Amino acid sequence: MMKVEFDTDALLGRLERLAAIGAIPGGGCARLALTDEDRDGRDLVVGWMRELGLSVAIDAVGNVVGMRAGREDIAPVMTGSHIDTVRTGGRYDGNLGVLAGLELCAALDRAGMRTRRPLAVAFFTNEEGARFQPDMLGSLVYAGGMSVADAHAARAIDGKALGDELRRIGYLGDQSPGFVRPHAFVELHIEQGPILEAEGLTIGAVTGVQGISWAEYTLTGVSNHAGTTPMRLRRDAGYAAMAIASGVRDLVREMGGDQVGTVGRIELTPNLINVVAARATFTLDLRNTDEAALQRAEAAAAALIERICAAENVAVEKRVLARFEPVSFDPALVDRVAALAAARGLSHRRMPSGAGHDAQMMARLCPTGMIFVPSVKGLSHNVAEFTHPADIDAGAKILTDLILELAA
Amino acid sequence: MMKVEFDTDALLGRLERLAAIGAIPGGGCARLALTDEDRDGRDLVVGWMRELGLSVAIDAVGNVVGMRAGREDIAPVMTGSHIDTVRTGGRYDGNLGVLAGLELCAALDRAGMRTRRPLAVAFFTNEEGARFQPDMLGSLVYAGGMSVADAHAARAIDGKALGDELRRIGYLGDQSPGFVRPHAFVELHIEQGPILEAEGLTIGAVTGVQGISWAEYTLTGVSNHAGTTPMRLRRDAGYAAMAIASGVRDLVREMGGDQVGTVGRIELTPNLINVVAARATFTLDLRNTDEAALQRAEAAAAALIERICAAENVAVEKRVLARFEPVSFDPALVDRVAALAAARGLSHRRMPSGAGHDAQMMARLCPTGMIFVPSVKGLSHNVAEFTHPADIDAGAKILTDLILELAA
Repeated sequence: MMKVEFDTDALLGRLERLAAIGAIPGGGCARLALTDEDRDGRDLVVGWMRELGLSVAIDAVGNVVGMRAGREDIAPVMTGSHIDTVRTGGRYDGNLGVLAGLELCAALDRAGMRTRRPLAVAFFTNEEGARFQPDMLGSLVYAGGMSVADAHAARAIDGKALGDELRRIGYLGDQSPGFVRPHAFVELHIEQGPILEAEGLTIGAVTGVQGISWAEYTLTGVSNHAGTTPMRLRRDAGYAAMAIASGVRDLVREMGGDQVGTVGRIELTPNLINVVAARATFTLDLRNTDEAALQRAEAAAAALIERICAAENVAVEKRVLARFEPVSFDPALVDRVAALAAARGLSHRRMPSGAGHDAQMMARLCPTGMIFVPSVKGLSHNVAEFTHPADIDAGAKILTDLILELAA
Repeated sequence: MMKVEFDTDALLGRLERLAAIGAIPGGGCARLALTDEDRDGRDLVVGWMRELGLSVAIDAVGNVVGMRAGREDIAPVMTGSHIDTVRTGGRYDGNLGVLAGLELCAALDRAGMRTRRPLAVAFFTNEEGARFQPDMLGSLVYAGGMSVADAHAARAIDGKALGDELRRIGYLGDQSPGFVRPHAFVELHIEQGPILEAEGLTIGAVTGVQGISWAEYTLTGVSNHAGTTPMRLRRDAGYAAMAIASGVRDLVREMGGDQVGTVGRIELTPNLINVVAARATFTLDLRNTDEAALQRAEAAAAALIERICAAENVAVEKRVLARFEPVSFDPALVDRVAALAAARGLSHRRMPSGAGHDAQMMARLCPTGMIFVPSVKGLSHNVAEFTHPADIDAGAKILTDLILELAA
């Protein structure tokens, strides 16, 4: 049996070919979940799975699992991530973990190696949450945290139902989510933050994932003429929403620590220069590695929103889009990522993930770990997202080492 | 010769028929300038002009003038306003002044009266500024404040050029703007603010119009992941824009007096829940009856914008969309409106206009005045815009009295 040699150039080639689907100016990708572009990306990846001899199964929310048989017919080691992107996405986020899994299968083929346990390479539906809510919907359903019926009823930002869109693009599969229960799950992912680069490190042994609180608020005031309505008589939904966004920054700064808070989306109605807005819809994204701190941030934001809306005499409706408590990964797997990096002489650190990942859902099903590689300037959800080939190579090697260990 | 009897029921009927074009739920209208709906509204009003025997002329920016001959071929008395609306407009704003002019012609016909001076009834293009900037574009060009070429080059919010849209809807006329130089101009309009209603008054003798400062700002930061980017490393264009909007409210409140300020439009890019916005575009509408105070507001806003953008390390570009100094109407005409209201036993006051009006442009050409009637709850640019029939009747009678005086 030959040595397993991971071919990073081949992985980079696959990343480039996948990135050509839904390509946008600046080198990025727009493949929102279950759009035509996502379908084309899925078709490409499923084709590669079949070329590699994997048996492909699709479940009722469009999660795709490609299985490479092992010497024994027992629980497989699973790796993977997602291939949907945000509207201004990069080519590494998610895609790296899926395609590295495929290249690992190719490397095993070249080495003539069959692992004891089967290997599964998966990609999960709608991880980004940029078209349907909640984010990580596919892996959440896979891990039993949401029903298929509720998932099918999820509405896209363009109004379509997720179930209808799955059927439309041909990815409404017949397997029940969770149909493969892994022995362990490992996800290779870019950091999407600036920490590894800032500290000059190559590998992150991810200890867990921040808790996430996502809500959408709709404020209703009174539309009126911007020239003739004295300030004291206004019920300006737009002002109230923007004052809240500004106040969220202040309260998050005051909390300090790991707390982050973002108002990334806002829409005013009628959204005209000379009309006081009748309605404002905006989202609030709060995250913290500590559940108690996250709850304090939520309470402070709620008080801020109530105070500003009351002062402006504006009505407020809240819709919870997602709420996940912080997740801790399997301590033994975190240790192994760190030890394998050390064994290869790669600089590394333990760190929490600021972003949500499919791995946090899979952690409900089986021992789970993640491997981070650096993001240049910490950029992600941005067409300029970039990870150096040498870092991709390092991450793929740690993934290979860990999976071979787990599958032995 | 019979008495001139203004038929307010007929005026209300015309208002209703015009409001049916571009009707939107709640009783409002959407006839943005030079859209298909605006063309249909123009066709209806021009048809009525022809039925009334007016000779109709159209100028190079689509201003329409219907002329009723006088006993002498001298400078006419002109009345009118606009028939374009904002996207969530009401049925009175602008339309009232145009259609009252037509009903006045009908009343003169019934009375068999020919005035000494000709009467002109006009409607001006793109008064609202909701589709093209600046607002009051048609009357501005008519009064010589903007060239036809510059007006034709104005870009709609949907990217179309004003000249192309004029041609498309068949309202690119052959007259030079200003082709009729009136003896005087009088505009009947709803107040669009709450003052007359709050004080229980029927007629406003408008002394002048607030100065208007309109600008669009585009902030450019860095798009990034909302979960992984520490607060201190963010260059969040969305946050900066919303903090500015919030700060504008504070500075306007501090200035007090007549100062108003509104951020009515904002768009973030990419506008997603989990992405720090790379770009934000918003508008700022500042108005004051006092030019020096308006300049202080502009300077305070500029300092605020510079401070917030510098702190967030966000680039800022400013585009001036409109800038008009406060306008004073002809003191003799203001006096006559007040005196005619008193003569009819109608309660009234002198007051400035918070909104911009075509009359402020016409004031560059000839003695000009305006008559206000109350807006229920001060609502305008809102489908619920309403003025009681009795108030419309009162305003139409003062318009009739004043025009007959001026045309004698």
